[in-house]
Amino acid sequence: MTLKLYFAPGACSFVPHSLLEASGAAFEPSLVLLHKGEHLTPQYKAINPRGQVPVLVDGDQVITQIVAIVDHLAARFPEHRFLPAPGIARTRVLETFAWLNNTVHPTFTHVFMPQRFTDNEAIHDDLRRFNREKFRGQLAELEVIAGRAAPFIAGADFGPLDAYTLTVTRWAGLAGIDPTSFATLWSFVQRVAAHPPVARVIERERLRLDMYKPA
Amino acid sequence: MTLKLYFAPGACSFVPHSLLEASGAAFEPSLVLLHKGEHLTPQYKAINPRGQVPVLVDGDQVITQIVAIVDHLAARFPEHRFLPAPGIARTRVLETFAWLNNTVHPTFTHVFMPQRFTDNEAIHDDLRRFNREKFRGQLAELEVIAGRAAPFIAGADFGPLDAYTLTVTRWAGLAGIDPTSFATLWSFVQRVAAHPPVARVIERERLRLDMYKPA
Repeated sequence: MTLKLYFAPGACSFVPHSLLEASGAAFEPSLVLLHKGEHLTPQYKAINPRGQVPVLVDGDQVITQIVAIVDHLAARFPEHRFLPAPGIARTRVLETFAWLNNTVHPTFTHVFMPQRFTDNEAIHDDLRRFNREKFRGQLAELEVIAGRAAPFIAGADFGPLDAYTLTVTRWAGLAGIDPTSFATLWSFVQRVAAHPPVARVIERERLRLDMYKPA
Repeated sequence: MTLKLYFAPGACSFVPHSLLEASGAAFEPSLVLLHKGEHLTPQYKAINPRGQVPVLVDGDQVITQIVAIVDHLAARFPEHRFLPAPGIARTRVLETFAWLNNTVHPTFTHVFMPQRFTDNEAIHDDLRRFNREKFRGQLAELEVIAGRAAPFIAGADFGPLDAYTLTVTRWAGLAGIDPTSFATLWSFVQRVAAHPPVARVIERERLRLDMYKPA
């Protein structure tokens, strides 16, 4: 079965991209340039009508949503333990994964793309300001979680929480928050970035980790 | 091991509440009244520092986030198949579950509690108006999914997608959208509401399904 991942540089597609790279399996990474609107073309919408990345194509199955893609990859590559086996360790990973996905990620979106939440441009700055401070508080929570990593957040095995933490910490810079102000989090992200499969994905996506510019 | 669920009537805690009731296991439902601020008391924040429902207490484990709670209950009560076994059917359920959780649910929150996204009351109506229309579009997507239910969204087995679909369709009324305008969705929700464990939870939470008032 062939595997293909549609990704955008630095987007949350970084999470499945890193797991696929860590799996050692052959897969085709397919670049989607959001700033050129490539996710909104009829060709891309025929693949994902919601016009989002990532999309994982596994044989004839087209799969969206990183929570579903990660569970799928964890079951497909059990030897890599991308998620713990059923039990409380797995529940804890999913708890943090869901929080990152339904809370931290969309809080950043309010700062980076307020037009997703209102068509009134006059209030974009207001949304940015309020949600930047919410995002800062969430990064502080995430720093506590990253501070317990040994060496990864789930323990011995690299997994989605590590890649997602790197992603949202990088987004801090884009949101006008200095990521180096979270010393423990920033140091954790450097370690994750040096993990060989992650380093290869960073190179393929041509990412710079520190994107900070004051708001 | 004792099981205890902290829930608020009509909140997304309805999802694990319904699964627990369907499990046949003994559990203690513990009512948290959001309009009285009971989720913000020091007592409740000692249980869940984020001040949200639901919380599942399983023995000495305190678990938040419905995606994690559902995965936990599915593993704990495998005979009920709350989630399909690993494979594409499971991936499809998680894909819709994640979308409900990270997109549909927070879109409603923008209409119902805009103060979560801005402290500027002058722009609350703007957020309500824009996100009400987004929510309407998402309900149309959900109606297509519900239209394929046979009899439940995942197939033969009742699960989280059915309970979550009922929940967000009920929220439509609170958001100023007439849920009966989605005939297929509304008819599906009536069927789910008549499923005996769901009917018992509706009675315990004292829910009325049609909450519609024009915006």
